[in-house]
Amino acid sequence: RTGARLDADTTARLRFLAEADRLKTELRATTLFDGSRRENSAEHSWHLALYALTLAEHAVRPVDTDRVIAMLLIHDLVEIDAGDLPIHTAASDRNAKAADEARAAARLFGLLPRDQGAALHALWTEFEAATSDDAVFAKALDRVQPVMANLATRGGTWLSYNVTRDQLETRVGDKVRRGAPALWDAILPQIDAFFTAT
Amino acid sequence: RTGARLDADTTARLRFLAEADRLKTELRATTLFDGSRRENSAEHSWHLALYALTLAEHAVRPVDTDRVIAMLLIHDLVEIDAGDLPIHTAASDRNAKAADEARAAARLFGLLPRDQGAALHALWTEFEAATSDDAVFAKALDRVQPVMANLATRGGTWLSYNVTRDQLETRVGDKVRRGAPALWDAILPQIDAFFTAT
Ligand SMILES: [Ca+2]
Repeated sequence: RTGARLDADTTARLRFLAEADRLKTELRATTLFDGSRRENSAEHSWHLALYALTLAEHAVRPVDTDRVIAMLLIHDLVEIDAGDLPIHTAASDRNAKAADEARAAARLFGLLPRDQGAALHALWTEFEAATSDDAVFAKALDRVQPVMANLATRGGTWLSYNVTRDQLETRVGDKVRRGAPALWDAILPQIDAFFTAT
Repeated sequence: RTGARLDADTTARLRFLAEADRLKTELRATTLFDGSRRENSAEHSWHLALYALTLAEHAVRPVDTDRVIAMLLIHDLVEIDAGDLPIHTAASDRNAKAADEARAAARLFGLLPRDQGAALHALWTEFEAATSDDAVFAKALDRVQPVMANLATRGGTWLSYNVTRDQLETRVGDKVRRGAPALWDAILPQIDAFFTAT
């Protein structure tokens, strides 16, 4: 576990980890559950990893929890270069964003030793594609956590973006149902209560 | 994947995850790598999980990376009730803290369905005991990440706590060496350069 090659790898990894630190200053639209401030993408990623650790039983098909966790730990790193795009924004903006994110992924995972960087880059690509069972569940968690924050803050970004009950269903509910239908069913009463009241 | 029992478990898990959100407001002594503000314990836990994901090869003995990651994701949750105690504080304060943390662990992991809560509580206890290979490596990462932040900020908490080179060696270096000696060796030149200059 020593030698010139491993020394170079250590340096590369520490460089990647120093760069990753910048995700702590990327702010999302969503706030903390206490509404005190906007959430950053690093703590969001930690929270999602905890969601996967505790909610894997609710995945629609069996998942490899450890892979889902790894996916969620790295899924937002591209925002360091490309920024965050709130989910309730126009589709045209979302398409323009994809190229920026692809470049960001190449640069950031490229900081790591080659094989390790390629493996994490592939895991990120899998998350973005959202077709594997692990990715579909990871995406469901990424969508459901802001819902819990909005419910905790009596509306949160639903109010600031004028989100309707129908828009929530197509932009968020469909993806949560796809990966974790039982989870969506569990929170539906709270969602309905909120939108009925507003 | 439905039924009354699973519904009750879902509710319990979402309650735990809402409580976990509070870790995002627990501030540590250490700052971000850009020095812009103090780091919170949620984003710190995310960063450590990334450390484990990329640096597992440097563990002194083979580790189960996924267990190390799970351990690091939950290791600071007790701070929600017990607060953070910076490493460079008196030993007497640290002992008084242990009882608070044990109570916090019982309450927080007790929010989860019984078997799951017991498993995560055991993982936290293993981390605290710092005797298993996985825990020794996890502790090494928990100690080395603030060192990288202090190096990035030209001293950071070493300056605010008047930490000497010898104190750093006994409070931090010994634990990093124990779990990841190659990692400590890799950053020693930067550490020596800093303490020689001050
Ligand atoms: Ca595994």
